[in-house]
Amino acid sequence: MALLHYPVYNKAKEIIVSAVTNLDVHDIARCAKTYDLEKYFIVTPLEDQTVLMRKIINHWTQGYGSKYNDDRKKALELVDIKEDLNAVIADIEKKTGKKPKIIVTAAKKYDKSITYSSLKSEISDAKAPFLILFGTGWGLEKSIIEEADYVLEPIVGRGDYNHLSVRSAVSIIFDRLFS
Amino acid sequence: MALLHYPVYNKAKEIIVSAVTNLDVHDIARCAKTYDLEKYFIVTPLEDQTVLMRKIINHWTQGYGSKYNDDRKKALELVDIKEDLNAVIADIEKKTGKKPKIIVTAAKKYDKSITYSSLKSEISDAKAPFLILFGTGWGLEKSIIEEADYVLEPIVGRGDYNHLSVRSAVSIIFDRLFS
Repeated sequence: MALLHYPVYNKAKEIIVSAVTNLDVHDIARCAKTYDLEKYFIVTPLEDQTVLMRKIINHWTQGYGSKYNDDRKKALELVDIKEDLNAVIADIEKKTGKKPKIIVTAAKKYDKSITYSSLKSEISDAKAPFLILFGTGWGLEKSIIEEADYVLEPIVGRGDYNHLSVRSAVSIIFDRLFS
Repeated sequence: MALLHYPVYNKAKEIIVSAVTNLDVHDIARCAKTYDLEKYFIVTPLEDQTVLMRKIINHWTQGYGSKYNDDRKKALELVDIKEDLNAVIADIEKKTGKKPKIIVTAAKKYDKSITYSSLKSEISDAKAPFLILFGTGWGLEKSIIEEADYVLEPIVGRGDYNHLSVRSAVSIIFDRLFS
């Protein structure tokens, strides 16, 4: 999976770089480890945030944190940081020899939206790796959604309120797809 | 639902009061609203943290935040703060005229653990309100688990790693029980 901080929208529908959030690193890494994902890429073009994130990750995977909390170490070991989506795709291609199929998640429904059960069977039948993208801020820039292989249908709870945090959305989507 | 900051364990299995986390307020309120819960109680005996939490909640429900983000307002309106579990139970009894059935969530399995599907049908058949408890820190103190009406089985992902954040656990459990 990859969590994108660019290109995403802000509240005014302008394209921005969002700030990396420390709890996104921890919560989502723990969730990715629980559902046995291969890798959790954090995508940001900002060098200062990349440096800061590497410092945090090193604390938990190699520094004092790795001795203090081994469970956290195992989760944070899944995390890598890349400057853009192409670098993530190139990394997966290099490791697997195959271009990944791209799944995007979105809070609204699209014509090409796929259900959880359909995507679940696509994944288990697949011969290629899958990369599932999550946006921060007010969602992924539209060309990323248009170019994706799959758009996952939005999470519907009870009623029409549909404003989950990305941490909650990741948790629910992994549980629906991989449990 | 109620999120308990006391009595919970720390890493050394001592009973402590954990600190209230700002993102627990926001993420869990948004999730509770998505799955149409009646109320989200934050339980802490610490007066300074109660004052701080009320300030944050007022910002989003009545202050500038309520004009800036109406979706956040709707979620935060579910939140109330109580000094202990008895005060939560008393509040529910006062509003509904009935004592709530208590469900606890735990990261390990107990003899009396109930499955998601069984609990789902218990809830839909019920004539009493339900109160679902989540612990912070290293989990709820054992007497709370022993005295509960139901202990929900732990979340199992793929593999044996089982260290989700409380924010992820709440999201997944609500989705399993209420979607």
